[in-house]
Amino acid sequence: MYNRIEQSFSRQGLMKTLNAQLAAVEKGQVTITCEFSEALTQQHGFFHAGVATSIVDSACGYAALTMLPENTEVLTVEFKVNFMKPAKTDKLICIGKVLQSGKTLTVCEGYVYDSKEEKLIAKMTATMIGVAY
Amino acid sequence: MYNRIEQSFSRQGLMKTLNAQLAAVEKGQVTITCEFSEALTQQHGFFHAGVATSIVDSACGYAALTMLPENTEVLTVEFKVNFMKPAKTDKLICIGKVLQSGKTLTVCEGYVYDSKEEKLIAKMTATMIGVAY
Amino acid sequence: MYNRIEQSFSRQGLMKTLNAQLAAVEKGQVTITCEFSEALTQQHGFFHAGVATSIVDSACGYAALTMLPENTEVLTVEFKVNFMKPAKTDKLICIGKVLQSGKTLTVCEGYVYDSKEEKLIAKMTATMIGVAY
Amino acid sequence: MYNRIEQSFSRQGLMKTLNAQLAAVEKGQVTITCEFSEALTQQHGFFHAGVATSIVDSACGYAALTMLPENTEVLTVEFKVNFMKPAKTDKLICIGKVLQSGKTLTVCEGYVYDSKEEKLIAKMTATMIGVAY
Repeated sequence: MYNRIEQSFSRQGLMKTLNAQLAAVEKGQVTITCEFSEALTQQHGFFHAGVATSIVDSACGYAALTMLPENTEVLTVEFKVNFMKPAKTDKLICIGKVLQSGKTLTVCEGYVYDSKEEKLIAKMTATMIGVAY
Repeated sequence: MYNRIEQSFSRQGLMKTLNAQLAAVEKGQVTITCEFSEALTQQHGFFHAGVATSIVDSACGYAALTMLPENTEVLTVEFKVNFMKPAKTDKLICIGKVLQSGKTLTVCEGYVYDSKEEKLIAKMTATMIGVAY
Repeated sequence: MYNRIEQSFSRQGLMKTLNAQLAAVEKGQVTITCEFSEALTQQHGFFHAGVATSIVDSACGYAALTMLPENTEVLTVEFKVNFMKPAKTDKLICIGKVLQSGKTLTVCEGYVYDSKEEKLIAKMTATMIGVAY
Repeated sequence: MYNRIEQSFSRQGLMKTLNAQLAAVEKGQVTITCEFSEALTQQHGFFHAGVATSIVDSACGYAALTMLPENTEVLTVEFKVNFMKPAKTDKLICIGKVLQSGKTLTVCEGYVYDSKEEKLIAKMTATMIGVAY
């Protein structure tokens, strides 16, 4: 399972650009992390909301993928994110978890934490669709 | 107004990393564009959903800022994005528009189009908060 | 088309309870209205957010249904609503419109107006799924 | 605290109309239940999505209120709901929980369960604003 996710992850140009790391894969849950750099900031010098969103969206998509048959890929139908604390941290820890796995649609929740996993910076709810290829 | 937005935009490290361009600023509406590159892709070689989201979030935030007094900054409270078509295009055109401007909160809608502004790739609804500094 | 929608609408017990009226049906757009009564209030005596949401959800669902083949029904996958003005009015006018019609999923936008259609009280974005029966 | 919530709840005409019951109040969490009746159905004879949404919105609002000073009321800024299972049950159990309590905004999560609290029928994320009166 890790290999399947890792191969897809390594083809995501954006994850390289953001210097994101696939940290953990288990059935129904995937963790991706990202070290702080100036290249990822908003105007106040913290992580841009879009960085957290991009990474936790990937984590949710891969969490959904762990529940689906081999010849399936996952697309994001929609997501919603609440930003609760400023993303002032040296590393984002982004965890995607499957909440409900259906035949067509998978509902995931995404959590963006600071480097100590103490502060919940943002929370995502995402709907993913599995497409056979 | 353009200068105020442009100065803030130029401090966003992520916008440089994504090679995004501030294209137009008017009262209540801001347009940011982004040329395709391999550095911005998901696993199928199209724009990653996170790129579109990052840029249209910035466009919505700046659209909100155009409605607010000088010594105010804008933070994203939450947003929701529906992804409707694959982001297969050589340029994203991301437009943020103010739907409702209140004392504390501003509601914006964001539109992500292909390079011809024909296909609506994604639609955002965002809640922004103005903070005096 | 009107008859098909009207038959389904008349089977919705909640729409009767709320005294909602199917006001207009066209391809891709459905309008449902609701007169104010004390039975529909929140604690300050205005329409409860849930009334507006229930009705505009039905309007979006039926708007989606107008785009789908005869032997199909529609279920709500998810929706998001922003409440922008207090629902102080003697009648809610709730309009559901199809934004994107796909094979499996339909994305709709819902608008809740006051009785003069001047104030936008709330805005919904909804994802609907068509299910053959 | 229970009295404060109960007094407000009893002024919500809609909660009476839906025959909803305030079941439990603790700091940061409120439970409201609702027995099935034909008056609350959608076209297939199950609970309408709007009933679940109305009640869990009230539960989230009151959960937020438990965190705020006495002379404050709560308004819903926005919410998003994912509907995961058909609401086929004789009673809805709707739980609102505070996820993040801030000076101005409170983020809540709402859970809609069947009568045995086994099936998660729907999940809400809501942003509430406290207003002094």
